[in-house]
Amino acid sequence: MFESAELGHRLSKEDYAAIEPTLRTELLEAQFDLLENKDFSVVILINGIDGAGRGETVNLLNEWMDPRHIEVHAFDQPTDEEREQPFLWRFWRALPPRGKIGILFGNWYSEPIGDRAFGRIKKAHLDQRLSELNRFEAMLSAEGVMLVKFWFHLSRPAQKKRLKALEANPDTRWRVGEADWQFYEEYDRYREVAEHVLRRTSTGIAPWVIVDGTDPQYRAVHVGRTLLERLQRRIEFVRKGFRPRQTAAPLVVAPDERNLLNALVLNQPMDKKEYDKQLEKLQGRLALALRSDAFARRSLVMVFEGMDAAGKGGAIRRITEALDTRKYRVVPIAAPSDEEQARPYLWRFWRRLPRRGKVTIFDRSWYGRVLVERVEGFCSEADWMRAYTEINDFEDQLVSAGAIVVKLWLSVSDDEQLLRFKARETESFKRYKITPDDWRNREKWPLYEPAVCDMIDRTSTENASWTLVEADNKYYARVKILRILVDKIDAALKA
Amino acid sequence: MFESAELGHRLSKEDYAAIEPTLRTELLEAQFDLLENKDFSVVILINGIDGAGRGETVNLLNEWMDPRHIEVHAFDQPTDEEREQPFLWRFWRALPPRGKIGILFGNWYSEPIGDRAFGRIKKAHLDQRLSELNRFEAMLSAEGVMLVKFWFHLSRPAQKKRLKALEANPDTRWRVGEADWQFYEEYDRYREVAEHVLRRTSTGIAPWVIVDGTDPQYRAVHVGRTLLERLQRRIEFVRKGFRPRQTAAPLVVAPDERNLLNALVLNQPMDKKEYDKQLEKLQGRLALALRSDAFARRSLVMVFEGMDAAGKGGAIRRITEALDTRKYRVVPIAAPSDEEQARPYLWRFWRRLPRRGKVTIFDRSWYGRVLVERVEGFCSEADWMRAYTEINDFEDQLVSAGAIVVKLWLSVSDDEQLLRFKARETESFKRYKITPDDWRNREKWPLYEPAVCDMIDRTSTENASWTLVEADNKYYARVKILRILVDKIDAALKA
Repeated sequence: MFESAELGHRLSKEDYAAIEPTLRTELLEAQFDLLENKDFSVVILINGIDGAGRGETVNLLNEWMDPRHIEVHAFDQPTDEEREQPFLWRFWRALPPRGKIGILFGNWYSEPIGDRAFGRIKKAHLDQRLSELNRFEAMLSAEGVMLVKFWFHLSRPAQKKRLKALEANPDTRWRVGEADWQFYEEYDRYREVAEHVLRRTSTGIAPWVIVDGTDPQYRAVHVGRTLLERLQRRIEFVRKGFRPRQTAAPLVVAPDERNLLNALVLNQPMDKKEYDKQLEKLQGRLALALRSDAFARRSLVMVFEGMDAAGKGGAIRRITEALDTRKYRVVPIAAPSDEEQARPYLWRFWRRLPRRGKVTIFDRSWYGRVLVERVEGFCSEADWMRAYTEINDFEDQLVSAGAIVVKLWLSVSDDEQLLRFKARETESFKRYKITPDDWRNREKWPLYEPAVCDMIDRTSTENASWTLVEADNKYYARVKILRILVDKIDAALKA
Repeated sequence: MFESAELGHRLSKEDYAAIEPTLRTELLEAQFDLLENKDFSVVILINGIDGAGRGETVNLLNEWMDPRHIEVHAFDQPTDEEREQPFLWRFWRALPPRGKIGILFGNWYSEPIGDRAFGRIKKAHLDQRLSELNRFEAMLSAEGVMLVKFWFHLSRPAQKKRLKALEANPDTRWRVGEADWQFYEEYDRYREVAEHVLRRTSTGIAPWVIVDGTDPQYRAVHVGRTLLERLQRRIEFVRKGFRPRQTAAPLVVAPDERNLLNALVLNQPMDKKEYDKQLEKLQGRLALALRSDAFARRSLVMVFEGMDAAGKGGAIRRITEALDTRKYRVVPIAAPSDEEQARPYLWRFWRRLPRRGKVTIFDRSWYGRVLVERVEGFCSEADWMRAYTEINDFEDQLVSAGAIVVKLWLSVSDDEQLLRFKARETESFKRYKITPDDWRNREKWPLYEPAVCDMIDRTSTENASWTLVEADNKYYARVKILRILVDKIDAALKA
C-alpha cells in the first residue's frame, strides 16, 4: 500500500510556483460553491507518520481556502465528558453541517492503530473495530458527508534522515526527543499495522490517499489536487441532478397475513387494585435500582414508540414518578432543528445521550426513520433499508459503552384508539387536543403495520431487543413496561 | 427575610386534596400555552436548606406538568470542560429555548453563598458577584426568560427536629451523617449569608420566593401557586399584546459633527517592501507568543467589525497564517440558527468560546446588536441601549476567566469602498461577489456612523478596548492589526 509513497516523489519550486495559483483559485471556487449550495459536507481525515507534514499541509489548505468555513479539530486525550460516552461520540460532536469542511486530526483511526501497534489489543479486536468504522463511514457517506482520507507517509530511511537532520541543526535539535527515536525503533511494526488498517478501510466511497511526505511541494499539490478533484466531481454530480445509485431489496409481507402485531391480544386483564399494588412495588424497585452504586457507572436509554394514543405519555410519567428529577431527561422528538437537519439523521440523538448515572427517555426516536419517514416517503427506500443496520450499530455502540437500552412498542386496537381520540376531543386538557394529523395517521395504519413489523424483526438484537406492549388496558400496559424495565436493569447490573 | 417562613406553616391533607386537582390542571394548561406559543422561556432556580424539600417539590412539579417539556439540571462539581470557562458558562449551556421550562438545582447562587458562609471569600467579593448576578438576571429577563427563584427554608429548630427524627428511625438513620450535624452547627452563619444574598438579589423582575419547607403539603401548594400565577400573568400579558415598558435615554450626536471615525486619517502610508518585512516579523512573534507555556493557560478571543470591504477577511488570514490550524477557529457570524433564535442573543457566542490554549476569531460578533440591529430596527432602542452594559459584562467575564479579548474596527473611506466594491464586481473569485445588500448598507452609512461611535465609546473598557484601524491601505491595516494583537498578548501574558 505504501509502495508508491516510498519512491521519493519531488516537485521543484518552479513547478510548484506554476501550479499553485490555479490550484488555490479552483479550491476556493469549489469551497464557495459548497458553501452556497450546501449540498453536502466534507470531512477530511488527517493521519500518518510523525514528521510527514500533516500540520503544515493543513495550514496550507487553510491558507488556500477561506478559513472561516473550515473547522479543524484535533483530538488528543478525551475530556471527562467524552470519556463517559461511546468512542465515536466526540467525533459526532465535531461533525460539520452541510456546506462546511471539517478537518479531523487524531480521528477514529488513531486509537485503533496505536492500540494494535503497541500491543494493547489483539488482531481480532482490531478487525472488529475496523469493520465498525467501515460501516460508520458508509453511513456518513450515504448521509451526505464526503469523506477524504489522507495518510501522510515517510519511509523508514526517510524518517531516520529527518531525525538526524533535525538533530544536526542547533535550532531544531530540541524537536527530537527520546520518544521520537523510540517510535523510530517501532517503525516497522507501526507501518505493518497501518498498512493493514488502511487496506481494510479503503473503500470505494472513501479510499485512503497515501501522500509521500518527504517533499513539501509534492505533498501540498498531491493533497490539494485530490481534494479539488473530489469536490469538483461531487459538485458536478449534484449539479447534473444525479443521485447516488441506491438499490434496496423490497421487503415482502408474510403471505399468510399473520404478523407480530395482529398476533397480539391487545386487551389484557388488570384491575385498578392490582395495578396500584404492582405500580407501587415496581416503582420502588426501579428507584432502588437506579440509586445503586452499580448504576452510577452505567446509563439508561429508553425508547418509546407506538401508535397515537397508545399511552406513551402516561407510561413515561409512571416511570419518571419513581425517579429523582435530577437523574432523568425526557426528550420528545418532533421536527428537527435546522442545525440537526444539516447533519446525518442520528446526530440529533447522539447529542442527547445521557451521561453516566443518568437516564434519557426518548418519546419517539431514531426509529422515525423506518416508520414515519418510510411511510410518508420522506426518505427513499434505500435510505430506510440501510437504516436498520445503522441503528443496530448505533445501539451496539451505546451498549458497549455501558448504556442499558430498553425499547418499547405500544399497540392499541383500532376500536380503542377511536375511543381515545374521541375522548381527547372532548377533554378539557388542551395538551390532549387531537390534530388532523392524528386522524390522517390513523387512516394510514395499513402502511404503518408492515413498517412496524419490519422494524421489530430487523432491530431486535441481543443487546437491545424490542418489547411489544398490549396497551388497550392502560393498567396492564404500564405495569408490563415497568416490569420489563426493572428486569432489564437488574439483569444488566448483575451481568 | 425568613420571618414568615419560620412561622411553621401547615396545610392539612384534606385541604391539599381539595386544592391539588385544580392546581395541576391549571399548571398543565399554562405549560401547554407556553409550549404552543413559545413567547418566553422559564428558568426556575431551586435553592435552600438541606432537607427543606427541594428535590421532592421538583419531582412533584414534574408529576403535575408534562415532564417532556421540563429540563432539570443539577450542577455539582464542574467537568473539566466547564472549569476552563467563565463561571456562568455551564448555566448558559443549560438555558432552555422559548416554550420550555428549565429547573436549575445548584445554580449560580450556590457557590457564592457557600464560599462566603465557609469563609472562602470576603464580603466585598461576595457583593461584587451579587451585583454581577443581578445584571445577568436583568439581561435574561429582558431577553424573554422568566425567572422564578425559590428558597426552601427550615428554621434552626426545625432542622434539628428533622435530623433527630431521621436518626430515630432505623430505616432512615443512614441519611444523617457527620456532615449534616456539622452543617447544623454552621446554620446561623449560613442563614445570615443567605439572607444577605437573597435581599441583594431580590428584584422586581425576579423576586425570591421563600418557601417554608417544614410541611410537604404547604410547600407544594406554595410553589405550585407561585409558578402558576407567574405563568398566567405572563401569558395574559403577552396575549393582550403588552410589551415590557422599556425606556431608553436617546443618544445625541456631538454638536460639532466631529467624531471618532471622521477624525481618522484613513490612508496611511506603507509600501509592499516594508509590509513584507513587518508581516514576517509580526507573524513570527505571534506564533511564538501563542506557543508559549503562559498562553496554554489562557485563551484569545478576537472580534473583527468594520465596514463592508474594509478588509476583515484579508486581515484574518494574515493572522491565521501564523497559527497552527489546530489552535484556532474562525467563526463567521451570519443569521442565527433556529436554536439560537430561541434564546438570548449572547447564547450563540457563549457556545463558541475557545477552550484553554485556543483562539476564536469572530468575523462580526455580538456587536451586531448595537450595529445592524440598531440601524435596521431589528430590536428596539431600549434593547440596544441595554446591550452596551450586557456586552461589557460578558467581556468582563471572559477576561476574568483568563481570556485575552482584542477588538478591532476597520474603517475605509467612501471612495476606497466604492473602488473595492467595483473591483469585486469584476473579479473572478465568486466568493468576492457583491450583493445588493452591500450597496444598500453603503447607502446607510450615515446611520451606521453614530452607531459605531457610540459602540466604541460605550464598550471600550479597561479589560477590552477597541482599536480603530485605518484601512484604506491594506498593508498598513494588516500590520497595525498584527502589532496591536501581538502587543496585547505579550502584555497580558506578562501581567
